[in-house]
Amino acid sequence: MALREANTMSDVLDLTCELIARPSVTPDDGHCQAVIARRLLASKFRCEHLHYGDVDNLWAVHGDEGPTLVLLGHTDVVPPGPREAWGSDPFVPEIRDGVLYGRGAADMKGSVAAFVVALERFVAANPDHPGRIALLLTSDEEGDAVDGVRRVAETFRERGERIDWCITGEPSSTTRLGDLLRVGRRGTLSATLTVHGVQGHVAYPEKARNPIHQAMPALSELAARRWDDGYETFPPTSLQISNIHAGTGANNVIPGELQVLFNLRFNPNWRAEQLERECEDVLRRHGLDYQARWHRGGEPFYTPEGPLRAAARSVLAAHAGAAPDESTGGGTSDARFIAPLGAQCIEIGPVNASIHKVDENVSVADLEALPGLYLRLIERMLLA
Amino acid sequence: MALREANTMSDVLDLTCELIARPSVTPDDGHCQAVIARRLLASKFRCEHLHYGDVDNLWAVHGDEGPTLVLLGHTDVVPPGPREAWGSDPFVPEIRDGVLYGRGAADMKGSVAAFVVALERFVAANPDHPGRIALLLTSDEEGDAVDGVRRVAETFRERGERIDWCITGEPSSTTRLGDLLRVGRRGTLSATLTVHGVQGHVAYPEKARNPIHQAMPALSELAARRWDDGYETFPPTSLQISNIHAGTGANNVIPGELQVLFNLRFNPNWRAEQLERECEDVLRRHGLDYQARWHRGGEPFYTPEGPLRAAARSVLAAHAGAAPDESTGGGTSDARFIAPLGAQCIEIGPVNASIHKVDENVSVADLEALPGLYLRLIERMLLA
Repeated sequence: MALREANTMSDVLDLTCELIARPSVTPDDGHCQAVIARRLLASKFRCEHLHYGDVDNLWAVHGDEGPTLVLLGHTDVVPPGPREAWGSDPFVPEIRDGVLYGRGAADMKGSVAAFVVALERFVAANPDHPGRIALLLTSDEEGDAVDGVRRVAETFRERGERIDWCITGEPSSTTRLGDLLRVGRRGTLSATLTVHGVQGHVAYPEKARNPIHQAMPALSELAARRWDDGYETFPPTSLQISNIHAGTGANNVIPGELQVLFNLRFNPNWRAEQLERECEDVLRRHGLDYQARWHRGGEPFYTPEGPLRAAARSVLAAHAGAAPDESTGGGTSDARFIAPLGAQCIEIGPVNASIHKVDENVSVADLEALPGLYLRLIERMLLA
Repeated sequence: MALREANTMSDVLDLTCELIARPSVTPDDGHCQAVIARRLLASKFRCEHLHYGDVDNLWAVHGDEGPTLVLLGHTDVVPPGPREAWGSDPFVPEIRDGVLYGRGAADMKGSVAAFVVALERFVAANPDHPGRIALLLTSDEEGDAVDGVRRVAETFRERGERIDWCITGEPSSTTRLGDLLRVGRRGTLSATLTVHGVQGHVAYPEKARNPIHQAMPALSELAARRWDDGYETFPPTSLQISNIHAGTGANNVIPGELQVLFNLRFNPNWRAEQLERECEDVLRRHGLDYQARWHRGGEPFYTPEGPLRAAARSVLAAHAGAAPDESTGGGTSDARFIAPLGAQCIEIGPVNASIHKVDENVSVADLEALPGLYLRLIERMLLA
């Protein structure tokens, strides 16, 4: 790392730049967690490194007992794609016209840096605060998400680790910082489906069994089904066929097998297990000879109205000048693994317009406002 | 090729094994035609190699003028599929319990070998026979069928080449050798269909348009349609989807495009042009954004009662002990290109139960009977 002149940059901007300059394409942490642990150790946090497989996880806690508030984030980023598509090197942070560019600027090294700065300020001002305040980081949010927070949550369950509230720093804002408060996420469930037929010549269809013909009515029914009409602020449950493959390449051969991948995003009307049963009922009713391999990506979670949502709404409204939308839309996040431990979970982070794209960026003004938002929320939850 | 002990195998079995051991997945000939040409040159045939594109065609003629009888076959085979699904290597001929296994054993290296042995015996016994006897082979029957017999037939038309009768060696028998005489074939028509959607994230289906979901109802309708109830002895027209592909591999991406190949086998109730119109009507009615590329493989043909059918019926009845069914069922064959030259066309070959499947095979007894059947038919047509 090149040395920086400390005076020219704010603390959060400086730390964000330091993290961006460490290429950490998932599941590589790029030693970001070591940098952060060093700072939090100086603030008297107890730091624990949990290595599972190729994945680094950091658990840093301050305080001894009582209600626990966890800030949740990740140090890994998605691959940058071709360098030449970027306006500047994705791993060399660059500020142009008040905007910081670099892979991870918005998703989510900016939030992680803001967490660290907020934690440092909070414990400096309240060394003997009630409850516990903690930071949990993984390097496996953008990848398989197996050895990251999923695995840490298993360890926590075994230990009996208590978590009451969790704030994830995922970029939730849509056009202005603080315009959206995420209060839940859909569940995700995937299936790898193999439909068996009998291979043969297209000229003798009576001697073969075409698995494409057999599967289409069942798949049409699954794709067309209206699973529900939504749940509270959740959008309706949706099934999407993402991949379908059959055929030898030759146009005169009826293939012996059809491969299908499909994914369900579902709201709290359902549990993964029920959806699996419903889907298999359809496949069986159509008489398919099939095998289905299911991957449960995570159950839905939902944080109903209560102290955490109320505090977050008030802090965001004070910053943005208007109450935020409270939403359960979007993809999935690691909060899905923390929620089942009994925690209330919300997500607050910068504008997400550029995430996973070239020229990922965050406004410097938003970045500099973030530590204050997190700090006020911590104060509301632990000191009120 | 490993050397074989000549005494342990008949001439036709030996040549069939030699051809199977030359992997010749369409349009590759695997030098089969060179092996055959060498033998027929020794029997004083005039051999002409017609190379078009990647395709090898062999035209071997004996005799100078008068009625011409052509034996028609192909040296290419369909891909074997996964090796582990086979009981033995598809390109290593193996005899188990009186059955010869290998890709092409039935479709149609066995018939090709039987043609060669019959031709050798016929000209050895009748060096100055009346008329002309010929063999036409291609390596492009199982593939595009563009640079094979289709192209050779164009050349023949330009040359004014006369063909009166044509016996194709396609595996026509259903349960016993000689139980079926094929006297016509359906037409064949193929489509390469691309359905356009809008790519997106599975979590935001409202921002994408899934081409798999859009296409399935239209494809289901096409696959389920009853096109007609048959024509004379022709079976009903049939549509089969042979290949279907969509997806990026990732399970969280809605693909932007679906690729489908399908094929129609049709009787003289239809012409290719009408079927194209009917299919596109269905695709349009379902509102698909699509492109269809059509390949007209050949219109149907039919050989009515006459000297060739009568001779064939009598030869098969003498072998099988009962008159054969006379049928126009099954796929298509290269006879569709020879029939329009004014030739009467029939097809006689081994049992077709295993063709295009794993463990393709032919009974050794049937294989050894085939040269005699072809020889007697040649004698009836040229010497009677």
